[in-house]
Amino acid sequence: MQPYLVEAYQSVARCRRLAGHTEEPGFITRTFLSEPMRGVHADVREWMEQAGMAVRVDAAGNIRGVYAGTMRDAPRIIIGSHLDTVPHAGAFDGILGVVLGIALVELLGGRRLHFDIEVVGFSEEEGVRFGVPFIGSRALTGEIDGEILARRDAAGVPVADAIRAYGLDPEALRDAHVTERAMAYLEFHIEQGPVLESLNLPLGVVTAIAGQSRLEVRFEGQANHAGTTPMHLRHDALAGASEWISAVEREAEATPDLVATVGRIAAHPGAVNIIAGVVVASLDVRHTDDTVRANTVKRLLSCAEQIATRRGLKVDSEWRLDQPAVAMESGLVEKLAQAVRACGYADHRMPSGAGHDAMIMARRMPVAMLFLRSPGGISHHPDESVLPEDVAAALATGVDFFEQLETAWRT
Amino acid sequence: MQPYLVEAYQSVARCRRLAGHTEEPGFITRTFLSEPMRGVHADVREWMEQAGMAVRVDAAGNIRGVYAGTMRDAPRIIIGSHLDTVPHAGAFDGILGVVLGIALVELLGGRRLHFDIEVVGFSEEEGVRFGVPFIGSRALTGEIDGEILARRDAAGVPVADAIRAYGLDPEALRDAHVTERAMAYLEFHIEQGPVLESLNLPLGVVTAIAGQSRLEVRFEGQANHAGTTPMHLRHDALAGASEWISAVEREAEATPDLVATVGRIAAHPGAVNIIAGVVVASLDVRHTDDTVRANTVKRLLSCAEQIATRRGLKVDSEWRLDQPAVAMESGLVEKLAQAVRACGYADHRMPSGAGHDAMIMARRMPVAMLFLRSPGGISHHPDESVLPEDVAAALATGVDFFEQLETAWRT
Repeated sequence: MQPYLVEAYQSVARCRRLAGHTEEPGFITRTFLSEPMRGVHADVREWMEQAGMAVRVDAAGNIRGVYAGTMRDAPRIIIGSHLDTVPHAGAFDGILGVVLGIALVELLGGRRLHFDIEVVGFSEEEGVRFGVPFIGSRALTGEIDGEILARRDAAGVPVADAIRAYGLDPEALRDAHVTERAMAYLEFHIEQGPVLESLNLPLGVVTAIAGQSRLEVRFEGQANHAGTTPMHLRHDALAGASEWISAVEREAEATPDLVATVGRIAAHPGAVNIIAGVVVASLDVRHTDDTVRANTVKRLLSCAEQIATRRGLKVDSEWRLDQPAVAMESGLVEKLAQAVRACGYADHRMPSGAGHDAMIMARRMPVAMLFLRSPGGISHHPDESVLPEDVAAALATGVDFFEQLETAWRT
Repeated sequence: MQPYLVEAYQSVARCRRLAGHTEEPGFITRTFLSEPMRGVHADVREWMEQAGMAVRVDAAGNIRGVYAGTMRDAPRIIIGSHLDTVPHAGAFDGILGVVLGIALVELLGGRRLHFDIEVVGFSEEEGVRFGVPFIGSRALTGEIDGEILARRDAAGVPVADAIRAYGLDPEALRDAHVTERAMAYLEFHIEQGPVLESLNLPLGVVTAIAGQSRLEVRFEGQANHAGTTPMHLRHDALAGASEWISAVEREAEATPDLVATVGRIAAHPGAVNIIAGVVVASLDVRHTDDTVRANTVKRLLSCAEQIATRRGLKVDSEWRLDQPAVAMESGLVEKLAQAVRACGYADHRMPSGAGHDAMIMARRMPVAMLFLRSPGGISHHPDESVLPEDVAAALATGVDFFEQLETAWRT
């Protein structure tokens, strides 16, 4: 039998159990410091304590279990992911990374390594309740400021009050900072995309989290009667936008590892019998190389200009997000890849197109991520799943990764 | 000085005066049997009576002035257009055609022709209040049925009650039918498009009112994460729809006198960071030859199928309107064109891309239409206008047209 398959099934079962703690019966919806998070904390605390960890919930609502190492002032490895979910989520996005951290400590069977292992279940990553993501990991890097604490949810409750209502003290947020000598942050996460499945691979070693550009692009032509305006006298904003959307797709296909998406579009006035006078479209461009990304956006905007000029339209664009890429630390990436190979799996390197807690943690310490195949590429959906065989592969990789670090310490 | 310029200025002034009767101060908004229509009827009645016409308002709210001919059981020429407006309209769409009918009778200076002239100001053409257009002209052709009478406006008032509230009797709708021997219906109307202006011509002789196809076309792909789904694994409904919209434009440009428009588009879920799973787009195709129109729609749908198949999308379409073209009567078209030439203007023939009352009247009698240049191609907008010189040209044409008919009668 495949090693660690029993533990893998137990980890999947734990994710399913945590999914029962939800704001909305019949669905999995669990936002930052919502009531059902208490049940999650109770379960996670029990598993952590049974594995020999010292457990606390910090002032940002992150649950943190420390499995002490043998060295005095031992350096620390943090393994983490998030425990909150999007509305109508699946059971594994985030959760699986926390549960695997606990399982890896359990697999030590009480044996102590030179370094500490801290497993962190972040309270917030998705940005659902307060419209700002990564509240949990930002507490560890010391980035929760007054502006974030003052943000309000849909009911008008500020972050600071949400923290108090959960029984925590926003004045004590400093206690959440990572002050120990953290030598690595490791995050297991489902891929949330179709790549590993398409390659028939269980695991992917993340090389970098792609940088993101988000823009709004506005084409302005002339709204006119669809019946009385001949084709050659039109300035059709939607025809122009459509030509550009096709160009966005072509440009992305021609640039290795780049993704570019127009996901939102609005045509005004938006009537069947009126030529569109204004079209507003979104643009989302991602790449692990910020220069490639910046050049692509530049080319796409210049392409929009050319289309507009030829058609007698005006085009404007507005930046909404310009988030740099975050590289995984090369030493850790190699160790993780070596562990994958040692366990008999293909060493597939891939970028992460989505943001993760590792992106924030990278500001304070070396980080690495391991992706697990997402069946059907499905995530943020009740059908989100993971194969127990892939979970076992991830556990084997984690065990080998620990052993490499421990061996390096000894020699 | 150009003939009839004084009368042209007076006609423009009358349109501006009628624009003062509005539901919304500061704008021109006057729907079917709304209160301000009473003021319009009072003004129009006065002008008609002063010109020697016998005036009545029929049970559908159409105001009708008859200038009797000299023959017993004289045949009749109807000159008409509509007195209702879209919200925030201009002063000339519809109105000008009624005012010009009155002016042409005035220009007879009391002289009687062999035939009757009936000037009709239709109560409803735009379809604003009850979501169904041509209530006025349909009353003349006997097409107001129980279904129309039962339709309700936004306030829940049925058509029948609106008629009663105006002081009219829906039971008496038969009195609106055209029972006389109507030998022609003539409609003067602003072009509502940019063609005559682009050709620097005052007048256009309408050959036919284009038939219309309206469809809803739905592309279904797969909604997915914009960051984690590489380009080659996408089924992007918006990328597919955009390719098709470009094809719609190319096909229309390649087909003489055809217009095709995608004016409405909706992408779902419509988020900047999610690949569109479903896109619904409208299609509006118009041509004066129903076969050309039908074949174009067929090609466009087959093109959508090809795009969808290549991209792994599904495509569905639903017909919303399939309205045949309505030809103007060739004998009247030639007489009108001869009048245009006789007055020294270019004989430009053109289709109407928009629907008009003439379309309905054609079911009962021969019809013809004369377009007047629309400055800027602007209509359904407060900036809608008309040049007094073009109005004078239309009056001259109308006078000559009458004389032709009168001469034909004598010989």
